[in-house]
Amino acid sequence: MSRRRRIYEGKAKILYEGPEPGTLIQFFKDDATAFNAKKHEVIDGKGVLNNRISEHIFSHLNAIGIPTHFIKRMNMREQLIKEVEIVPLEIVVRNVAAGSISKRLGVEEGTVLPRSIIEFYYKNDELNDPIVSEEHITAFGWASPPEIDDMMALAIRVNDFLTGLFLGIGIQLVDFKIECGRLYENDMMRIIIADEISPDSCRLWDVKTKEKMDKDRFRQDLGGLLENYREVAKRLGIMNENEPPRGSGPVLVKSD
Amino acid sequence: MSRRRRIYEGKAKILYEGPEPGTLIQFFKDDATAFNAKKHEVIDGKGVLNNRISEHIFSHLNAIGIPTHFIKRMNMREQLIKEVEIVPLEIVVRNVAAGSISKRLGVEEGTVLPRSIIEFYYKNDELNDPIVSEEHITAFGWASPPEIDDMMALAIRVNDFLTGLFLGIGIQLVDFKIECGRLYENDMMRIIIADEISPDSCRLWDVKTKEKMDKDRFRQDLGGLLENYREVAKRLGIMNENEPPRGSGPVLVKSD
Ligand SMILES: Nc1ncnc2c1ncn2[C@@H]1O[C@H](COP(=O)(O)OP(=O)(O)OP(=O)(O)O)[C@@H](O)[C@H]1O
Ligand SMILES: Nc1ncnc2c1ncn2[C@@H]1O[C@H](COP(=O)(O)OP(=O)(O)OP(=O)(O)O)[C@@H](O)[C@H]1O
Ligand SMILES: [Mg+2]
Ligand SMILES: [Mg+2]
Repeated sequence: MSRRRRIYEGKAKILYEGPEPGTLIQFFKDDATAFNAKKHEVIDGKGVLNNRISEHIFSHLNAIGIPTHFIKRMNMREQLIKEVEIVPLEIVVRNVAAGSISKRLGVEEGTVLPRSIIEFYYKNDELNDPIVSEEHITAFGWASPPEIDDMMALAIRVNDFLTGLFLGIGIQLVDFKIECGRLYENDMMRIIIADEISPDSCRLWDVKTKEKMDKDRFRQDLGGLLENYREVAKRLGIMNENEPPRGSGPVLVKSD
Repeated sequence: MSRRRRIYEGKAKILYEGPEPGTLIQFFKDDATAFNAKKHEVIDGKGVLNNRISEHIFSHLNAIGIPTHFIKRMNMREQLIKEVEIVPLEIVVRNVAAGSISKRLGVEEGTVLPRSIIEFYYKNDELNDPIVSEEHITAFGWASPPEIDDMMALAIRVNDFLTGLFLGIGIQLVDFKIECGRLYENDMMRIIIADEISPDSCRLWDVKTKEKMDKDRFRQDLGGLLENYREVAKRLGIMNENEPPRGSGPVLVKSD
């Protein structure tokens, strides 16, 4: 681990060179950031939970034919992934108004949207990830029209799957963000889903209590982030029913 | 004029009931506003110039088969228009980076864009006219997909025409904003161009000197707004070559 080449260190993850060309190792840190890193905290054990939750979701996506970068989980904090050329966009799918759309368009938080809405944000910390449209994306060459179509089709499929997955465990999928990348394989290029899908990148509300079970607990200083992430993992069937003893970190069920 | 019913008073114009059903009279005020009316000033004679410049542009658009609300100019400050159901969007076409796109996407003012970009803003003063994409427009029902296609096609045609018109008189069309409306006629609905096209709604730079000849003179406190609007009118062949005596207001050539 010490001699591995570090490719990139982000706010929540580190990418290391993988064991084979075209692979990377994605390491999940415990750092929580919000508002473009103006707010920052270390939350002991978050990385372990996100690694495991993201593994769970990505392996299911792979299984139903939604292509992702995920190959396998290596250990508590690391997973093996396919290296892609990241499209510099965050793709957000919203089912219920919350966060920036509530503010920007004056839609009260909690309002079910007339239909799911896909938004694109230009990944650029300096500019605070501004919202953009297909016109900007194609004019500046961040993605081509067929790539946009592919990303939107993937985003809709992921939304369908995740909505069902979470509804089955009493959680409402309010919105989520994905990143996509270009994978060059056998002289072909295709768009696949990269990065992570976890309570860091989703808004998840308990269906009954409307309790927030996602990173808004950190953004809004609600406390109890780890407990809620652990509850999400538990309902997904990832964790042991028995709470781990305090301080020992989450106990994880062996991956299927 | 005194007994006419006032339908709407905006920041720059007043709409009165027209002489026949389905018509309105659009009155051009001298008020200049910017930053959602946080900045306001009265500029003596601006309304007269905009009425005349907008007449000039709209009558040419009508002539080349781009449908607009414009019927005829009535007098110095008023024009007869067709009443439409305004689509609550501002449609902006940009050829060169300036204003909000420079700030939002970090493109230096004056950079020629890789291609012309069409943007939509939701017309809502309370929300500060937020930028939106087709996803928001269709999800919230502000316009249908075929209406969006129609508006984009009109915007592109207007851009082609205006780019040529202004280039011919030594002016670069940096960007402009239009509003569209639904016209119900003979049991048919079609999208036409409404509102105004004037130096209030365009960015116009002198090709040689790069001098700004538009409302940015007011937004940026550059002074000389009226002189520049008058110069635009003069180059368009609208005004007498001879400057009018100070205080008498612009002398206008009779409409063709
Ligand atoms: N399969 C992949 N191949 C290459 N890069 C990837 C892959 N999956 C994710 N990434 C990139 O790895 C980085 C993950 O780190 P992290 O999420 O901490 O970044 P960040 O701080 O959010 O910053 P940013 O996402 O803006 O780069 C991101 O830049 C992400 O785009
Ligand atoms: N043909 C038309 N039929 C109906 N309404 C029109 C027509 N043309 C323009 N309008 C509307 O008339 C108003 C013109 O007034 P003005 O431009 O001063 O408004 P404003 O202060 O800019 O406010 P806003 O445009 O946000 O309503 C605008 O609301 C515009 O949408
Ligand atoms: Mg990230
Ligand atoms: Mg207006």
